[in-house]
Amino acid sequence: MQAVKVGLLGLGTVGGGTATVLLRNAEEIQRRLGRAIEITHVAGLGIASQTIFDPAKVKLTEDAAEVVNDPEVQIVVELIGGYILARELVLTAIANGKHVVTANKALIATHGTEIIRAANEKGVTVAYEAAVAGGIPIIKALREGLAGNQIQWIAGIINGTGNFILTEMRDKGRAFDEVLLEAQKKGYAEADPTFDVEGIDAAHKLTILAAIAFGIELQFEKCYTEGISKITTVDVEYARELGYVIKHLGITRKTDAGIELRVHPTLIPRKRLIANVDGVMNAVLVQGDAVGPTLYYGAGAGAEPTASAVVADIIDTVRLIDAPAVYKVPALGFQPSALSVAPILPVELVKTAYYLRIDAEDKPGVLAEVSEIFADHEISIEAVLQKEPEEDEAVVHLVLLIQRVLEQNVNIAIAEVQALTSVMGEVVRIRVEHLGK
Amino acid sequence: MQAVKVGLLGLGTVGGGTATVLLRNAEEIQRRLGRAIEITHVAGLGIASQTIFDPAKVKLTEDAAEVVNDPEVQIVVELIGGYILARELVLTAIANGKHVVTANKALIATHGTEIIRAANEKGVTVAYEAAVAGGIPIIKALREGLAGNQIQWIAGIINGTGNFILTEMRDKGRAFDEVLLEAQKKGYAEADPTFDVEGIDAAHKLTILAAIAFGIELQFEKCYTEGISKITTVDVEYARELGYVIKHLGITRKTDAGIELRVHPTLIPRKRLIANVDGVMNAVLVQGDAVGPTLYYGAGAGAEPTASAVVADIIDTVRLIDAPAVYKVPALGFQPSALSVAPILPVELVKTAYYLRIDAEDKPGVLAEVSEIFADHEISIEAVLQKEPEEDEAVVHLVLLIQRVLEQNVNIAIAEVQALTSVMGEVVRIRVEHLGK
Repeated sequence: MQAVKVGLLGLGTVGGGTATVLLRNAEEIQRRLGRAIEITHVAGLGIASQTIFDPAKVKLTEDAAEVVNDPEVQIVVELIGGYILARELVLTAIANGKHVVTANKALIATHGTEIIRAANEKGVTVAYEAAVAGGIPIIKALREGLAGNQIQWIAGIINGTGNFILTEMRDKGRAFDEVLLEAQKKGYAEADPTFDVEGIDAAHKLTILAAIAFGIELQFEKCYTEGISKITTVDVEYARELGYVIKHLGITRKTDAGIELRVHPTLIPRKRLIANVDGVMNAVLVQGDAVGPTLYYGAGAGAEPTASAVVADIIDTVRLIDAPAVYKVPALGFQPSALSVAPILPVELVKTAYYLRIDAEDKPGVLAEVSEIFADHEISIEAVLQKEPEEDEAVVHLVLLIQRVLEQNVNIAIAEVQALTSVMGEVVRIRVEHLGK
Repeated sequence: MQAVKVGLLGLGTVGGGTATVLLRNAEEIQRRLGRAIEITHVAGLGIASQTIFDPAKVKLTEDAAEVVNDPEVQIVVELIGGYILARELVLTAIANGKHVVTANKALIATHGTEIIRAANEKGVTVAYEAAVAGGIPIIKALREGLAGNQIQWIAGIINGTGNFILTEMRDKGRAFDEVLLEAQKKGYAEADPTFDVEGIDAAHKLTILAAIAFGIELQFEKCYTEGISKITTVDVEYARELGYVIKHLGITRKTDAGIELRVHPTLIPRKRLIANVDGVMNAVLVQGDAVGPTLYYGAGAGAEPTASAVVADIIDTVRLIDAPAVYKVPALGFQPSALSVAPILPVELVKTAYYLRIDAEDKPGVLAEVSEIFADHEISIEAVLQKEPEEDEAVVHLVLLIQRVLEQNVNIAIAEVQALTSVMGEVVRIRVEHLGK
């Protein structure tokens, strides 16, 4: 059989990695597929200086539009990132009857509905395994490997930069700002780290996971997102004393009322396997009704780990390149006509447990006052830790773990606590998830 | 589209679980697949007493041959276990043009070559996700999710009973025999626990993993297998002091000389994620050349976790039920004509690090004598621990960690150590794997 012709958009970190892996593993891939994959077109800025491809054999261009409009190209691999140009190129490729493989989480999370609809109408494939958790085949696990289950919830460490920062804070007692600087120097974090540390990147990925777990539309705009920039080493240490680790999790859960979709710092029990996922590594914990908990761990970023997912998508696409749609796994794992309209819950209607740190004057009665407020709202306190910070003996840190309660109810109680004259400043509040059944 | 008709062989733990999951999640499965799956035939011993199916709607029989010969049945799901009858039934089903889904690791590991060849000739599918690590979609991850990689090695905790026993020994200091008895009472271990604790069950699964990782034939008979029944709490404790955990691992690795295929107790660094996989849970760590390490964790046994994998296979099979072979992932992940003939290495040619415990008389010079033997063979000692066991002050335990060395070389050195007059009994030897790059 003839080699399948692939056009690559972008020859940066992931594009270069994809080219390298496809070339290095060509023989192994052909052993699997019974067919060769050939990169015939590459578009990239400064393409003239590339050294991977022989310009006599591969069409090189600075203009990505040339690739998506070239009739020779059968599969377009979009690795340029961003929303605007990428959307245009992908839609043009689809309109031209080409299959698309992308690693672009922002694109799928925000324009996925439009792109998937266009692909379905045209009878082509859109594959995006690399968009979530890099090289971990979590899209495949959810869409196919766990297809016999009703997925109940997912909790994922799906941003390596954030996990690196939290791991360093915990292991070395270093402050957030200091570790962030190091992450930037190491190339883990962008110069503008907002997408990573404020949870936007994780929210893109979580949006995709929720859609394929529950068979709902992609709804990035409804994802609750809270970053880790306000986490302090004090809270990291108190969490440890209580047997917990703070992780930046993306959590999505199906409840009778609707679907939770939220990214925020979270205390999780240290004994959970996912609590031991450290540094830049990613992991996704999935609870299915039949299988129970399963966890998928690996590198969430980097040239070759991401390329691993891109190439797997290319292989899947090639295998069914001329197959009718009925033989293919639908883009969101569910038939487009069978998507559920279950609503995304506003965060006020989400029920979680909480870690609270209340800074108060060091005088008798504070614990009594605080306890009374929670008792009045019928909120149980599960654990209490009262500490005098070394640097200021006039203040006590009152740390509470409270039971699972609706966010809108805990908001009221916290407002009352903050109104106490002995309480200083804002109450620190971090959600707690036990990640058990 | 008409519902696809499934015939179930076996209505025991996994069969019952499969029926339950297919019925409970029928709606979700239809949302995914766009088509219903219907169990129309069930064979099982004592079938008259079953309560899951309506005998007016489902053909129930004690004779599995009836199911595999019934022209109505499109997919046969073999969940009776064992080699002999299962092989006959599966081959008959294939000869009758039926697709097969099985959870039978022993069958695939020992008769897989014959069965897959028959299926290929007949143009039907044989799926066996449930045969390895229960509900963890590891077959799919290896055959598809990591298809862009050259797999370098795999290390798996793939027998829950063994992992439960080792976890209890470590956490509670209990002896092997005592924990085995408890595992039998809890129903984790069979009355004859040989398959589990002597590593035969793990060897079946590892044989399958190696075949699909490297694209080689199934070669169960060449798997080196060593059980955990000789592991003592003394060695568990010394391993802990050295920063290691003892796990019963299945390891397969591609080297220039050939393929390692071995099941044995193994010291692994406590800081590795897989070292924290406890109790009856399974996990498989896979090293790919592009993706690096990825890990897959979940329940390796049990009715519904195993059913999760069986049902996923049924869904995959239904999606491509009338598709030509070219659209399907080959049974071993590689084209049948492209399997490699790389040899399986005999264990003497495997290179690993070792933990050695030498029991010796408590007198000067023993460490010097032992060190000299290893030095003579150019084997480095990486760590030494010398302990007097409390119960017998005339004996010392000399614990060594030695560097990676060919098994046939360490055998010679150990024989010389055992020949020392001050050394008592056999040297305890447990392999050590660092599971890094």
